[in-house]
Amino acid sequence: MNKPEKLSDAQRSTALAELTAHGWQVGEDRDAISKTFTFGDFNEAFGWMTRVALIAEHMNHHPEWSNVYKTVKVTLSTHDVGGLSALDIAMATKMDRLAG
Amino acid sequence: MNKPEKLSDAQRSTALAELTAHGWQVGEDRDAISKTFTFGDFNEAFGWMTRVALIAEHMNHHPEWSNVYKTVKVTLSTHDVGGLSALDIAMATKMDRLAG
Repeated sequence: MNKPEKLSDAQRSTALAELTAHGWQVGEDRDAISKTFTFGDFNEAFGWMTRVALIAEHMNHHPEWSNVYKTVKVTLSTHDVGGLSALDIAMATKMDRLAG
Repeated sequence: MNKPEKLSDAQRSTALAELTAHGWQVGEDRDAISKTFTFGDFNEAFGWMTRVALIAEHMNHHPEWSNVYKTVKVTLSTHDVGGLSALDIAMATKMDRLAG
């Protein structure tokens, strides 16, 4: 996988328009995006996390996330570039798709 | 499984003496215990979470937890009793054992 690069202004505004329409929020105090996913129960929430974890390992790009029973709050940012990269946009899109 | 009950003062002090010796901290603003587990990498951290998740489903007692790469911060408390119960002590002990 190529080394991630920070998004350009144009890439950023296209990607964020799409993601914010799907419930993602841009960080106020850091260049990151967050979303809270709510499932039917713990089984569904952790099942989703497990599918995402396998993708994260494959991408070598890992979310920051917290789980309380049926909710999972996710924050995505790319440590190596100090902000949002294409990896975060790809991960957010995959998370949404898996959450159905 | 029996309905959980809040720990008595005696049960509490015995259990907490043991757990705080293993790195658990008692909540300052709520009746809960917390610990941050650090693993070798994401694979180990999420592998541990998966084993804990299966136990949590079996016990019908779920942690609040957050994961950032190789660290997992856990908080345990029993919603139904508004504080610590024997379920939290049992879960904390299992988590420590699985973390090795």
